[in-house]
Amino acid sequence: MLNLRIVVVNPVAIEGDDDPSFTAQAARSHALRIALLEAGYNIIASLPADLYLPERIAQMQPDMIIIDAESDARDVLEHVVIATRDARRAIVLFTEDEKKSSMEAAMAAGVSAYIVAGLQTARIKPVLEVAMLRFNQDQKLLNELSDTKTKLADRKVIDRAKGLLMERQQLSEQDAYKKLRRLAMDKNLKLAEVAQRVLDANDLLS
Amino acid sequence: MLNLRIVVVNPVAIEGDDDPSFTAQAARSHALRIALLEAGYNIIASLPADLYLPERIAQMQPDMIIIDAESDARDVLEHVVIATRDARRAIVLFTEDEKKSSMEAAMAAGVSAYIVAGLQTARIKPVLEVAMLRFNQDQKLLNELSDTKTKLADRKVIDRAKGLLMERQQLSEQDAYKKLRRLAMDKNLKLAEVAQRVLDANDLLS
Repeated sequence: MLNLRIVVVNPVAIEGDDDPSFTAQAARSHALRIALLEAGYNIIASLPADLYLPERIAQMQPDMIIIDAESDARDVLEHVVIATRDARRAIVLFTEDEKKSSMEAAMAAGVSAYIVAGLQTARIKPVLEVAMLRFNQDQKLLNELSDTKTKLADRKVIDRAKGLLMERQQLSEQDAYKKLRRLAMDKNLKLAEVAQRVLDANDLLS
Repeated sequence: MLNLRIVVVNPVAIEGDDDPSFTAQAARSHALRIALLEAGYNIIASLPADLYLPERIAQMQPDMIIIDAESDARDVLEHVVIATRDARRAIVLFTEDEKKSSMEAAMAAGVSAYIVAGLQTARIKPVLEVAMLRFNQDQKLLNELSDTKTKLADRKVIDRAKGLLMERQQLSEQDAYKKLRRLAMDKNLKLAEVAQRVLDANDLLS
């Protein structure tokens, strides 16, 4: 677990900014990074939530993204969501934002842990471990859902194509199925793909 | 959120027990209940993890079950899982058990929050809020998965029954489908149920 490749993402710092909220965020980030390092974690980068984030995350392929933002966690989260759209990654959010709407947005975005006022060094290891296990569990469930949806959609397409062949070419169900299967083998396609082509061809010709 | 009906479940206490781990657990439970009450939550019961737990939970219908167990959280969790088998409820686990296997068991059991060394009063509200939102999100996903699986299974059964009717009674696909639909309407059953009966009857008679 300690070999996790972690990227920490912070709100964008404004150069030369000396207002108190900026100083507080800087102190906060510092404390988090120390806590991670003391717990033995491997921080491969610490990045601002800017336009370059998606590209950098794609290059670095971290296992986990930790968002550390006192108040504007939602804005940072939006950047991270865009940056992980193509490949989901475990996201852990440390914040002081207790608004229910922010929590809901984080859950909907697939955040694996949302921790308010939880920056105690002693807790960081179990928090990240639970977050990683939860992420893996969520991934399993989402994959299962996506597989089942694909199977259902495939079946619908195959059924429609089969019905079309039966009607158009006066085939029995079995013969229509055999014809689809032979087409799929000939063209080296999946059954559902060939079925979709049959339906598309029919739309074009009718 | 503060109207949540909460049941706290503790390890079974042994009457007259005066060993140090028992005393520690008692102090721990006490602190948790004070934290919940101070945060304004409604504890409808505090129960031991015994054989009567399923019945009591069924009677009380809590929104959330909080397990509070210094070390033997896994044993308590098993009781709670049995008690929520028929109606899932949000489960939050406060423990000192940092074993990965215990965490994995908790994730697999659908625990909405697993908090190690996290009994600070200030944190309890956001922790329970995030847990409740996560539970609702998980429920949505699980319901979607279960619906999709049912649709796929229904479709398979209906397809098989249709094929059987086409073969046995020399019907076209449309006529076989119409026959199933008429049977379903006559018997006031779902299409998949009637299809299953057709298949069962065929198994019995062949």
